[in-house]
Amino acid sequence: MATQPLPGFRDFYPTDFAFRAHIFETWRRTCQRYGFEEYDGPPLEPLELFTTKSGDEIVGQLYNFTDKGGREVALRPEMTPTVARMVAARAGGMKKPIRWFSIAQHFRYERQQRGRLREFYQLNADLIGETGPLADAELIALSIDLVRGFGLGSGDVRVRLSDRRLIRRAFELRGLTEAQQQAVMQVYDKFGRVPQDVSLLKLQEAGLASGDIDALLRLAGVRDFAQLGEGTPDAASLLEAAQPLVEARNALVSMGLGEWIDLDLTIVRGLAYYTGTVFELFDAGRTLRAIAGGGRYDGLLQQLGGVDLPAAGFAIGDVVLGELLRERGLEPEAPAPVQVFVAGVTPEDTPEVLATAHRLREAGFRVEYALRPEAVGKQLKLADARRASLAVVIGPDDRARGEVQLKDLRHKTQLAVAVAELQAALTAALAT
Amino acid sequence: MATQPLPGFRDFYPTDFAFRAHIFETWRRTCQRYGFEEYDGPPLEPLELFTTKSGDEIVGQLYNFTDKGGREVALRPEMTPTVARMVAARAGGMKKPIRWFSIAQHFRYERQQRGRLREFYQLNADLIGETGPLADAELIALSIDLVRGFGLGSGDVRVRLSDRRLIRRAFELRGLTEAQQQAVMQVYDKFGRVPQDVSLLKLQEAGLASGDIDALLRLAGVRDFAQLGEGTPDAASLLEAAQPLVEARNALVSMGLGEWIDLDLTIVRGLAYYTGTVFELFDAGRTLRAIAGGGRYDGLLQQLGGVDLPAAGFAIGDVVLGELLRERGLEPEAPAPVQVFVAGVTPEDTPEVLATAHRLREAGFRVEYALRPEAVGKQLKLADARRASLAVVIGPDDRARGEVQLKDLRHKTQLAVAVAELQAALTAALAT
Repeated sequence: MATQPLPGFRDFYPTDFAFRAHIFETWRRTCQRYGFEEYDGPPLEPLELFTTKSGDEIVGQLYNFTDKGGREVALRPEMTPTVARMVAARAGGMKKPIRWFSIAQHFRYERQQRGRLREFYQLNADLIGETGPLADAELIALSIDLVRGFGLGSGDVRVRLSDRRLIRRAFELRGLTEAQQQAVMQVYDKFGRVPQDVSLLKLQEAGLASGDIDALLRLAGVRDFAQLGEGTPDAASLLEAAQPLVEARNALVSMGLGEWIDLDLTIVRGLAYYTGTVFELFDAGRTLRAIAGGGRYDGLLQQLGGVDLPAAGFAIGDVVLGELLRERGLEPEAPAPVQVFVAGVTPEDTPEVLATAHRLREAGFRVEYALRPEAVGKQLKLADARRASLAVVIGPDDRARGEVQLKDLRHKTQLAVAVAELQAALTAALAT
Repeated sequence: MATQPLPGFRDFYPTDFAFRAHIFETWRRTCQRYGFEEYDGPPLEPLELFTTKSGDEIVGQLYNFTDKGGREVALRPEMTPTVARMVAARAGGMKKPIRWFSIAQHFRYERQQRGRLREFYQLNADLIGETGPLADAELIALSIDLVRGFGLGSGDVRVRLSDRRLIRRAFELRGLTEAQQQAVMQVYDKFGRVPQDVSLLKLQEAGLASGDIDALLRLAGVRDFAQLGEGTPDAASLLEAAQPLVEARNALVSMGLGEWIDLDLTIVRGLAYYTGTVFELFDAGRTLRAIAGGGRYDGLLQQLGGVDLPAAGFAIGDVVLGELLRERGLEPEAPAPVQVFVAGVTPEDTPEVLATAHRLREAGFRVEYALRPEAVGKQLKLADARRASLAVVIGPDDRARGEVQLKDLRHKTQLAVAVAELQAALTAALAT
């Protein structure tokens, strides 16, 4: 019998689970502060839901099969088609804007590599029914707070911000063909990571005029809105197209998040899919894969769900963020499973041990006791192994006096406590 | 494009999700009070993991397929094989007893009916490495507290308690053949739900002597430990075999949970699988399917994972429990997504609205604001739609004075508050 999970799948032992729960809880709390409501859909969906969005090419990366009812189905590789389906089914009855998030497991049959498994958890946040730059800023702010919540700062993570409308304007101003646009986007995607002359050659091969090449490579290097129109006759037109992005950026500055943002027009995220703002979160050193990414996709709900609602959203995964947190020493210690261990001195004390343990659990304490008769010393060893802070020891004499012995296992102290005062004494001791 | 999920699969819209989260959170808190640690495994596992436990017959009920690497895989129909696999991989390094729980989605390709979907969530709790009746009692107590946590009482839910060792002893005392044992278990499974003469006929057909039939039907009706040995020459032997069950029951009485328990030897749960105590939780009226069930399966970890550790455990599902809670009116109202709505009077107030909203989110409030310029009245309508309790209204005059207007949307009151005192004022207002 195999003891390993499938390749690319993770077992979450309690320590791993505690780390995952820390990530999910931090995310959940942050989304709720933004007024986002949590939803979930099935991990298994009709295959068509995913091919409608991404084409048949996606099937090669899916866990797909025919179910016993002859349905073509697939484990979800992403959440957006499910959101579109769910919103479409009830679009009329829902107050806009819809603020929704989910934290769900996704599946892709891909080659494993660092930061990429065959299953991963992803938070998806969508803001549906609103077109303006404030909606974009709201999502970008949320994505920043989703990493800030772990103690990461703007020196650890950078937000790269672009806008399809601005890129499209730059292409239109130069009358680029579809093939030339693709060539530029491919050069942008590798910008700063391949030598400049390789980029140059690629654009020349695509038949771009040298003036256009200069202008587009200059744009790729712009990191500041003030430089957008510098040294180009198209300044006014470019700046006009940049207006929504400028407003989104200004909103982020008002929220105190301006220092996280880099203008970066080289972000390439499915050219056909996004219609406006696009953004990605990366570790500042760029040694890891993207932490999060998203943008505005105003046509997608129409295409997927048949309802014409503007929408923007993003996803953040647990794998790359988890790597970064571990790298930065921001992985919290897993909480001790037990706070109070209840021990009995003789077998006759067992009923009182059971009654006490259950009463303390009722009161909200995390409590354990030995499940077989054992010497007190052995019971206290188990208490230590379970990282209990306190032990309540009950013996025949204690019972006769209506007392228990309260041992502080951290400070090696002990005192007698009246049964009626035990809960208050435990609360006080745990607070020290 | 379909707007529906696959048959037997659920969409969790925010209201549904809130109910599910209420169930999971109540479960999680309760398990933690028992010192249980949460783990999770992959929803997709090697098919062999499930057929090793349940035989090839199980495949007909699975979502199974061949993955793109040629592996035979299946969506998990239950958690126990995964636990066995995970514990086996690290058995040596783990302090016993192991107290583990998981809350995970499971999948079965079955005919849909009331209380049975094709996916369901299930809490699994296992106590591994301990053989005694106190371990069994600990699990039964946990299962009771998992329903008590929702406000259900012993008048709503009953625990039916049996023991394989006791049943086996009753069979041995009468020298029943394997086929006769099967016949008795089939009669037990339907006991009280079919006429007595049907049961009688069935046992006669299996060739049981009339004295054995009388004794076994009497045992099926016993609900009290005191009646176990009544009117039978086998009393001493039966009572000896019942000793672990009596001790488990006594432990539950010590915990104050005795009133939940019914002795009921007619529980049939995979005769080969369980080796000792078995139990099930049912709604008191028996109108629904079982809420929870489990018991001791000391040989299973050896069979599945190759490590010889005694183990007991149970599972409780979200579907039947959810039905019961709805039936009893114990479904809580979903919390309002927004506590504080921040509104601006003029477009010039937007930066201050954004700054205030972000500051309040930082402080932990659930905050929303309009994502486009709108009249205050329209902004407050959105605040109402989002069930916000409070609104903070910011206008040019307020800004000049360093103040905001705090409106209580529930009590229709309003007062001016200095910006520096806003958080304290909101906290106070929300507490009313």
